[in-house]
Amino acid sequence: MSADTVHPSAVSPPAVPDVPAVPTGPGPSAVPGETGTDARRSPAVDVGALTALLDGRYAEVRDLVRANLDTWSGVLEDAETMDHHAFRERVKDIVLELAATGQTGMGFPEEYGGGGDIGASVAAFETLAYGDLSVLVKVGVQFGLFGGAILQLGTREHHDRYLADLVRGDLLGCFAMTETGHGSNVQALGTRATYDPATQEFVITTPDDGARKDYIGNAARHARVAVVFAQLEVGGSSEGVHAFVVPLRDEQGACLPGIRIEDDGLKMGLNGVDNGRIWFDDVRVSREALLNRFADVTPDGVYESAIESPGRRFFTMLGTLVQGRVCVGGAGINAAKVALTIAIKYGLRRRQFEASSDAPEELLLDYGLHQRRLFPLLARTYAMHFAQEVVAGQLHDVTSGLVTDEHAKRELEARAAGTKALGTWHATRTIQECREACGGAGYLAVNRFAALKADTDVFTTFEGDNHVLLQLVAKGLLTDYASEFEDMDQLGLVRFVAGLAVETVVERTRVHQLLERIKDVLPGGDDWDQEAGILDSDYQLAMFRFREEHMISGAARRLKRGMDDGMAPGEVFSRVQDHVIGAAHAHVERLVLEAFVAKVRAMPEGEEKVAMALLCDLHALSALEADRAWFLEHGRLSVARSKAITREIGSLCRRVRPLAEDLVDAFAIPPAMLRSPDLVG
Amino acid sequence: MSADTVHPSAVSPPAVPDVPAVPTGPGPSAVPGETGTDARRSPAVDVGALTALLDGRYAEVRDLVRANLDTWSGVLEDAETMDHHAFRERVKDIVLELAATGQTGMGFPEEYGGGGDIGASVAAFETLAYGDLSVLVKVGVQFGLFGGAILQLGTREHHDRYLADLVRGDLLGCFAMTETGHGSNVQALGTRATYDPATQEFVITTPDDGARKDYIGNAARHARVAVVFAQLEVGGSSEGVHAFVVPLRDEQGACLPGIRIEDDGLKMGLNGVDNGRIWFDDVRVSREALLNRFADVTPDGVYESAIESPGRRFFTMLGTLVQGRVCVGGAGINAAKVALTIAIKYGLRRRQFEASSDAPEELLLDYGLHQRRLFPLLARTYAMHFAQEVVAGQLHDVTSGLVTDEHAKRELEARAAGTKALGTWHATRTIQECREACGGAGYLAVNRFAALKADTDVFTTFEGDNHVLLQLVAKGLLTDYASEFEDMDQLGLVRFVAGLAVETVVERTRVHQLLERIKDVLPGGDDWDQEAGILDSDYQLAMFRFREEHMISGAARRLKRGMDDGMAPGEVFSRVQDHVIGAAHAHVERLVLEAFVAKVRAMPEGEEKVAMALLCDLHALSALEADRAWFLEHGRLSVARSKAITREIGSLCRRVRPLAEDLVDAFAIPPAMLRSPDLVG
Repeated sequence: MSADTVHPSAVSPPAVPDVPAVPTGPGPSAVPGETGTDARRSPAVDVGALTALLDGRYAEVRDLVRANLDTWSGVLEDAETMDHHAFRERVKDIVLELAATGQTGMGFPEEYGGGGDIGASVAAFETLAYGDLSVLVKVGVQFGLFGGAILQLGTREHHDRYLADLVRGDLLGCFAMTETGHGSNVQALGTRATYDPATQEFVITTPDDGARKDYIGNAARHARVAVVFAQLEVGGSSEGVHAFVVPLRDEQGACLPGIRIEDDGLKMGLNGVDNGRIWFDDVRVSREALLNRFADVTPDGVYESAIESPGRRFFTMLGTLVQGRVCVGGAGINAAKVALTIAIKYGLRRRQFEASSDAPEELLLDYGLHQRRLFPLLARTYAMHFAQEVVAGQLHDVTSGLVTDEHAKRELEARAAGTKALGTWHATRTIQECREACGGAGYLAVNRFAALKADTDVFTTFEGDNHVLLQLVAKGLLTDYASEFEDMDQLGLVRFVAGLAVETVVERTRVHQLLERIKDVLPGGDDWDQEAGILDSDYQLAMFRFREEHMISGAARRLKRGMDDGMAPGEVFSRVQDHVIGAAHAHVERLVLEAFVAKVRAMPEGEEKVAMALLCDLHALSALEADRAWFLEHGRLSVARSKAITREIGSLCRRVRPLAEDLVDAFAIPPAMLRSPDLVG
Repeated sequence: MSADTVHPSAVSPPAVPDVPAVPTGPGPSAVPGETGTDARRSPAVDVGALTALLDGRYAEVRDLVRANLDTWSGVLEDAETMDHHAFRERVKDIVLELAATGQTGMGFPEEYGGGGDIGASVAAFETLAYGDLSVLVKVGVQFGLFGGAILQLGTREHHDRYLADLVRGDLLGCFAMTETGHGSNVQALGTRATYDPATQEFVITTPDDGARKDYIGNAARHARVAVVFAQLEVGGSSEGVHAFVVPLRDEQGACLPGIRIEDDGLKMGLNGVDNGRIWFDDVRVSREALLNRFADVTPDGVYESAIESPGRRFFTMLGTLVQGRVCVGGAGINAAKVALTIAIKYGLRRRQFEASSDAPEELLLDYGLHQRRLFPLLARTYAMHFAQEVVAGQLHDVTSGLVTDEHAKRELEARAAGTKALGTWHATRTIQECREACGGAGYLAVNRFAALKADTDVFTTFEGDNHVLLQLVAKGLLTDYASEFEDMDQLGLVRFVAGLAVETVVERTRVHQLLERIKDVLPGGDDWDQEAGILDSDYQLAMFRFREEHMISGAARRLKRGMDDGMAPGEVFSRVQDHVIGAAHAHVERLVLEAFVAKVRAMPEGEEKVAMALLCDLHALSALEADRAWFLEHGRLSVARSKAITREIGSLCRRVRPLAEDLVDAFAIPPAMLRSPDLVG
């Protein structure tokens, strides 16, 4: 690393916490069209002001990472030209250099060399996603997953033994949870840890190939230790999944006795990360290897935990690892920004077909279809950014102990799961559309999309498969985190909901609160949609809330009816699954829009506020348009209004057109990270 | 290549042509629910019979290619492990070996060592898409683009000079049309070919970097000659774009004087194909270098062509190259089959979460959502396959001279463009969904999706950007190929439509024929949707036809109105562009459904017919569901019926479930091409 590397000690500490609050609509007194102020004009924005808005309280952290990205921009080329063995070493070296700057340790306690600020650590990670994503994921594995597990599941002794070394990068580790046979259903992992009171050791065993640890980052090459998740067995009883620190390799990198590791080989992308498989053949570790924050085993073999329910215990452990999901969601959103920056700049350079006989060919970005393809994605990227800011703020508050109630923790987990799902799907879709919008040029590796696509593709299924994550969100919505929540599998959910009156479900889920807020804006009767303009953000929010409430209640009703009709719970779940997931989707969409609207409302008057209101409208209307069939089917959209929304989107796109370049410049992506010499000029 | 390679001489000639006719609905006497015979049962199908149905008249050709694929299955690994320089050589060697088998020459005249059967050549190419796609694309470049240009644009002399060598693979060439600055608007290419009567030579020149040939397959390394498209200038007049054979390299592979070539470097995928850029610095070629089937220059410099209109001349030249688009569409559809086969087989092995407390975990494919994600894509793959069979048959008839009228040629071009667009988008979408449906396992290169995704990604933008291709389709629909058709750019189109009465447009476009056929099934009045069942294929077709007619008329009206309102044609086009493209999309969707319905109707009664009818229903209803907002907005779908369609799709998916594996086995993909040892077993 060059001497230019910026060290965080040069950065002043972040200002007073300023996490944006979830918006509360102004109620019936809201002025219709409020966010549509100055509606027919394209504002002239200050790019720096928008960057400051986006960067938020961690602007200096983000600038530090931007500066560091510039010092090893060559890694983007190395990712293509080095073979994967060499590239893994290259990436490891960069990660160690980053560790030396402190950038990667911001989330750890200061006494172990960290920065003591979870929020800063998320901001740093997100910004790292502007660069090579193998570096990002290797950082995530080492400091987020491995380091996070030691920090969150371990106790003082583990912290003292491991944290300083791992923060410095002197001890590399991996997070061995997933198995070939179990990725989403981790409660059913096959690896066993049996306590042997005679020697006061745990014996770690892989009973069959389905239970081998798989896709484990850092395992194939660099990890010296692993945090291994295994079924704890004490005195013949099974106590559920717990985490253990298990040494894998000696100082020279050779596997220790009883450890077998196989390389997962080449992947679609992220080939700078060494994923592998691990088998344990009766590997013995000391009693202290158990990460014992939530449960312990006494020397003579008595299992002890303050949390009685095994389900709740397991969810509590998993819950502390929520940071990984928050980080992946943010990374996906930032990768989408890179793609949009390139595609929009290309659309402002590339001409195609004559606009009139005596003019040069027309710019791509002046075509209505091109605007339609890119601008709603740009608007949604801003929306997702602000939603991510909210969840990162909540993560900071919960993890730093500023917020302690259990319900807030469950809500954070649900919000993290939902934002991760929508953010990573958004990345996949946006990068694809941007690639196609650059034609053949977008296919050349030098133009960045090859790596962006390949590297981000796994985001939708790692750190939780997106569909399974939305199921988790739905479970919370349908049960309002009832006391049995953590012990409920999908069949338990069906039985739970079936056992309640639908009204009770509706009450429990707090959708009645949504209903209250809808009623003010969308009164009943045939002329409800005459009341508010489509550019009124209260109208938009009411529509999102109506959909959510209706889908949750509807899913509850269908689950109940299925059981009442005598169907097996598994069959009921299978049939209602898309509805359940749709309800979760609608919930997260509502949170995203609320975050964007709240952000806009909190801004001082000015051109930037006009621009953000414009984008917020474009996002809201695009989302309504995409699901307008549902609103038409459910009597909440007239044909006339549905068509008006489509027309308005075209008009909003034309207004975004003059500020499109400013809107992507505001992401402040270091030019070297864009590459694309022929595309962005 | 091993001695097992199967040679086409071992294959008996295809039977009597049996190209499926475009269906004519049976009219008002049709029995509602006809294709839904035996509606609530899952049929038991014979896999071999389905394979025979899919393979059609070229079953033996397809089996030959399957056998050949098996002989070099190692190339799938090589694609990952070799550096791209070595892999390019490996792919070239395979292409030469394939040429030696005759498989790649089936479309050339027998007198030059070809097979004399265009249809067979398309079938062979499509099947090759089960294997490594660099091999496929290199074959396409050499025999389709380069060879096709010599064959279709050249005359006897060119054929005698080049064809035998290129069919054998002794002469490798490239197709140098695209330039950095011009991909879609090829009429505006910058490369110049100026006739010098003094020496009776053409002087080929690249005036600036925007006019360098770019992304040209075979150019970076292997091509010895190029077919170069350039603006012909004779005696100071510009005669438009023409094609010239230009030598690039000597026998040793060194660039000839005046030729500069640069490597395009690494790409997202297809790294076994050597794409490059070419500059011409006053390169002189003989007068005979002009491929002169449609135009010639006399020795003393007089330009002669039987086709007076420059636009028509250019479109006639381009039209002869339609085979490339037909081939790419078919390749995309077959790549989707590979992805579906892997994902569906994985869904039948992988278990996740308990279905009931005393049962093993549930198979992925038994989840309603998993079925919903994969089965409509499977149904659409069958639909696209049969639509592809129709366009390949029409290509065969036109190119073999069995059909000669100009209108049929224009319709073939439009159909090829549309099928290519929908087929390649379908590939991108299907491969993505299948990857995600395999979770983390789908991300490992050994499990095939990495290459499938990366290699097929460019299909949506090469051989014509899909959006531009749909614009071409729309132009044909809106003008019914008026005599001015070929001279019309997008602004000409606007002016042309604006100059007609809307009724005239509707009449010209023959949408009135559609209307006639709709009226019988969808009578007016409020209860029209009571008349026919949603599983009645006549009802489904009428819905598709209604949408097409309505969108074409609507686009025409909007173009007219824009001009009437005094907007500039460019602005009118920009605003109506998404509508215009939507109309083309609706048109092609209708052709696809008609192809599937016709196929089913022509089948003898039996289990396979029941299965195909089931898939056809699933395809039709999924397409209606995806666009149900439009039908709701246009009064052609009641809310009740819209919801009934959604319910029916769930029910159809459950009926497809028991035969899902048979339906993918029917694709008969050689097991070695699936790889995925842990996924498909």
